[in-house]
Amino acid sequence: MNRINDALSRVDAARDGYLQELSEFLAIPSISTLPENREDVLETAQWLSAHLARLGCAHVEVIATGGHPVVYGEWLGAPGRPTVLVYGHYDVQPVDPINEWESDPFVPTVRGDYVYARGASDMKAQIFAQLKAMEALAGNGGFPVNVKYLLEGEEEIGSPHLPAFIDQYREKLACDVVLNCDGGIIGPDTPAITYALRGLAYFELSLVAHAKDLHSGVFGGSVHNPIHVLADLIAGMHDAGGRVTLPGFYDKVRDLDPEERAELARLPHDDAQWMAMAGSKSLHGEAGYTTIERVGARPTLDVNGIWGGFTGEGSKTVLPARAHAKISTRLVADQVPGDVRGQLEAYLTAQVPEGIQWSLKEHTWGPGSIMDRKSDYMKAAVDALRTTFGTEPIFKREGGSVPVVGIMQEALGVDSVMLGFELPDDGFHGPNERFYLPNLYRGVETYVRFLSAL
Amino acid sequence: MNRINDALSRVDAARDGYLQELSEFLAIPSISTLPENREDVLETAQWLSAHLARLGCAHVEVIATGGHPVVYGEWLGAPGRPTVLVYGHYDVQPVDPINEWESDPFVPTVRGDYVYARGASDMKAQIFAQLKAMEALAGNGGFPVNVKYLLEGEEEIGSPHLPAFIDQYREKLACDVVLNCDGGIIGPDTPAITYALRGLAYFELSLVAHAKDLHSGVFGGSVHNPIHVLADLIAGMHDAGGRVTLPGFYDKVRDLDPEERAELARLPHDDAQWMAMAGSKSLHGEAGYTTIERVGARPTLDVNGIWGGFTGEGSKTVLPARAHAKISTRLVADQVPGDVRGQLEAYLTAQVPEGIQWSLKEHTWGPGSIMDRKSDYMKAAVDALRTTFGTEPIFKREGGSVPVVGIMQEALGVDSVMLGFELPDDGFHGPNERFYLPNLYRGVETYVRFLSAL
Repeated sequence: MNRINDALSRVDAARDGYLQELSEFLAIPSISTLPENREDVLETAQWLSAHLARLGCAHVEVIATGGHPVVYGEWLGAPGRPTVLVYGHYDVQPVDPINEWESDPFVPTVRGDYVYARGASDMKAQIFAQLKAMEALAGNGGFPVNVKYLLEGEEEIGSPHLPAFIDQYREKLACDVVLNCDGGIIGPDTPAITYALRGLAYFELSLVAHAKDLHSGVFGGSVHNPIHVLADLIAGMHDAGGRVTLPGFYDKVRDLDPEERAELARLPHDDAQWMAMAGSKSLHGEAGYTTIERVGARPTLDVNGIWGGFTGEGSKTVLPARAHAKISTRLVADQVPGDVRGQLEAYLTAQVPEGIQWSLKEHTWGPGSIMDRKSDYMKAAVDALRTTFGTEPIFKREGGSVPVVGIMQEALGVDSVMLGFELPDDGFHGPNERFYLPNLYRGVETYVRFLSAL
Repeated sequence: MNRINDALSRVDAARDGYLQELSEFLAIPSISTLPENREDVLETAQWLSAHLARLGCAHVEVIATGGHPVVYGEWLGAPGRPTVLVYGHYDVQPVDPINEWESDPFVPTVRGDYVYARGASDMKAQIFAQLKAMEALAGNGGFPVNVKYLLEGEEEIGSPHLPAFIDQYREKLACDVVLNCDGGIIGPDTPAITYALRGLAYFELSLVAHAKDLHSGVFGGSVHNPIHVLADLIAGMHDAGGRVTLPGFYDKVRDLDPEERAELARLPHDDAQWMAMAGSKSLHGEAGYTTIERVGARPTLDVNGIWGGFTGEGSKTVLPARAHAKISTRLVADQVPGDVRGQLEAYLTAQVPEGIQWSLKEHTWGPGSIMDRKSDYMKAAVDALRTTFGTEPIFKREGGSVPVVGIMQEALGVDSVMLGFELPDDGFHGPNERFYLPNLYRGVETYVRFLSAL
């Protein structure tokens, strides 16, 4: 307990400087999907590696991949104690629609209890809390556990090089447990641990109806309009009950047993509050399931983007040659991301009218996962949250995808403990992304307690 | 006949210079819908007014409107003879998708028998042919008829200021007939005269489902996706037989009588050739009608553009706040463009799910029209085309809209004679727009003959 108290008093002494340092980290626009931000992503990796070295990692590398680099760090000075592999990502999403941001996404700005910036909650402040906990623990002449860091720069583009990286560095990454800092909690004072994640399969569909754009007056009404065809296809992807119609989509879905449904029903959820968080005036989803079940335990399909024809100001009477959509599915445990492409292809083969060419590009994918709620590591996490927040944490399923959890399970044979302090209305991936600052400090405390207890 | 022969020999002497002069005209990017091209549109107006003065108009003005100016010119030196009001427009459509152009849209380029440039067929070469005819006729010490020019710069954005302009200058524009040069023919050697035009009503529909963009993992499957809603709405705008479902849409449509259907069936049309012109591999339209009927005599609805969510490179797992579409209808005689807004609103009121806000912006509209095929002016046009092309011209209905024809009919009480030499596969409004050069010279000859015969 002395070790913990010593560390926490070092946290108290240091916390006034946290915001300044976090703002440096947030200010670098590490948007991984945009080629023009390549240097910024690299700069962020270097910022992190310098930070790891400063806080006490004995060995730090920025390791090149086919895309953005991985920041690796290690300290193995506690023989006989467990080795924790800390996972995080330092890349962020694009900022569009940029005109909806109230302050520059890369000029971190405090309003009320929040810091606003792209990447604030997803997930720079999340990694930062873990780093600050390590910094405080290091003051005792070393860490309470062996630690390895794997901080990637391609999570927001689906971690295309991560599976090969983990495979290549399997020995280097060997560990007893993964601490994944990309989790979230339910409300500012309601700690939670995510035990299930949805997988993802993300595609881009392109339809070509004509060799070139046509005049809608000359040809309109006599040939296919690819936007109409795309609308028909999208409309047909859900039935009247909100179920996805891709053939075989539900075949491997693990049903919810009554016990788990009852447990999920105990989560402090309120539909009106959910709508308020989303800024929505109605709910909509698969018939027969609650909101919590719909986002955590049921697979879904969303069109994430659509475009075709004239989208500028004013009018243009064009009958376009092409139309496009980005389409992603969220998958639950036992669904195989690789199966979705075939299901989508079967759907398109059956539904696309004659004479229209279609093509499907696969952007990213990752499996869903479910973790053992009874392991020792999970118990340590529950204890750390309970002591820090003064209330019992809740087990929850996460609607989002953290494919690395499944990848680590498969490649390294270890479970992940998902911690993290993001809130559901932090607006990650959207405009005005933010992080609730009081939980930055609680986050540091939680990590100090968790790592000391292992 | 001497007058005609004199003029035609002047055409022969001058025609080597036509292409150079036409290229100057085509090189100015007079895109009326884009604010950044405002100066270019004005420069085009000035180029034209200088041209009108040079070829013999006694009075030329560039008259300001609430938007782009009208070029007005007149020569009234033939008292007792008819007055012809020449209508044309000097603005052009935007050039996107720019990467599909084989040469710069504003660097006119000759390949084979065609000149390629934005505005080549729609309609700078068309006006140019008429101007060159006037130039040749002027050599005899004046024109064979009184002439007025109304050349507008806002046709491609729906002529928003033209009705008020015509109303304001009603006396100045008084005439016996309008010569509208915005017509087209059926094939390179098949002259035609358009006697019916479709009207247009063009809207922009916006749906708002959420206050901000959301994360598709967190909220996907629990709230509406506005792209799905938009797809449902668009899919529902046509029934299985290809008929538009807006309530009341067909109420005022003038049915085709068997005689006119028989006449339209005699048009030299071939479905395979139509598909080749469109670059399409299938036909699609309202059940029970031929292609010619579908595009000329039946109303249609086309989505001209659609956008929403993430449309950049790569992937973004966003559940968008908004989705948008540009939606236009083509109308036939007796349908009232002003009615369509109400029909669309009724459709949306009934179909948009609760909790989704929708709004409708009206971009442009104009009535359809039908002209008297038996008038003296029409006969003069038929004679001019027959002599020039050496074959009988064909009467045809046009799928596109030339709202000014209806506006002139209403405001000035005169019919329009539609001439013009654009071909159906000239790609107007699309990439690689072109004009068939041999018909530039035949066009000049046709106008010389038509104007001399009045």
